[in-house]
Amino acid sequence: MDSTKQIQMEAIGYVRRKSKEEDVKDRRLISEIVIRNDLAAALDGLEDFSHLYAIFYMHQVAKEEKTELRVHPRGRADLPLLGVFATRTAFRPNPIGLTLVELLKRKDNVLVVRGLDALDGTPVLDLKPADTRDMVANPRVPKWLRLLEEESRVRRLSKH
Amino acid sequence: MDSTKQIQMEAIGYVRRKSKEEDVKDRRLISEIVIRNDLAAALDGLEDFSHLYAIFYMHQVAKEEKTELRVHPRGRADLPLLGVFATRTAFRPNPIGLTLVELLKRKDNVLVVRGLDALDGTPVLDLKPADTRDMVANPRVPKWLRLLEEESRVRRLSKH
Repeated sequence: MDSTKQIQMEAIGYVRRKSKEEDVKDRRLISEIVIRNDLAAALDGLEDFSHLYAIFYMHQVAKEEKTELRVHPRGRADLPLLGVFATRTAFRPNPIGLTLVELLKRKDNVLVVRGLDALDGTPVLDLKPADTRDMVANPRVPKWLRLLEEESRVRRLSKH
Repeated sequence: MDSTKQIQMEAIGYVRRKSKEEDVKDRRLISEIVIRNDLAAALDGLEDFSHLYAIFYMHQVAKEEKTELRVHPRGRADLPLLGVFATRTAFRPNPIGLTLVELLKRKDNVLVVRGLDALDGTPVLDLKPADTRDMVANPRVPKWLRLLEEESRVRRLSKH
């Protein structure tokens, strides 16, 4: 198999945010996924799911230089040097984003979602309904990630 | 934004199965994800996660005709006609597959996984470690999907 051959895709829509200045990492924020008008009918029935996976193309990253194979999570030298596939860094061979979002509403070709960490204008590649086959009760994760999660939790508590 | 512009990607590796005849829908089966040698280092640290998301390109589907916007799940006329984004059909505008798999072992550039429903030779686009942010305890799903899940359960019980 020629695994290096180019694969072509096209956007099915894009992400629309209230402002380009929003902190997209804040998972409480609400944003919209605007699907191309010619594909609106392909959303029929998605509104019966509480959650969906948004698969998107991190176009701002795609303009950058070739990626490193190893990174420190969040650029923190105190955390281990890891392969990019062991992290969610945007700097990866194919800059694909994957996020489980809560579906709040559908109106025609627009989905209102909570928790999408994608920039305003990000091209969307696919949407998939989330079901129980995608869920694991207690996935095992490494120590560095548990540390980051604990830090986030403390930060949220101290803010409110 | 020109949402119709082409997006280019390339395979980071491919799926290797024991046989082309395997029933890829059987989530108990074990298969391999063979990553390109030049990207092997990008896997470092992934072995500390119990589960990962495989994002792949359903190349056999990509050769087919343009897709319909609505389908009956599993082609069953007794189930509602739904938009393709409300289903996991392979016939979608971008034939991207997304599956949560269990990571059993990594050896150099090869991952041994359980539950990957991709054909032998399928190009892989990205791998992402699964963590608790990707999990929802009880996602709401439509009645047609609960019916399909119940049927699968009964079929499994009757086989064993």
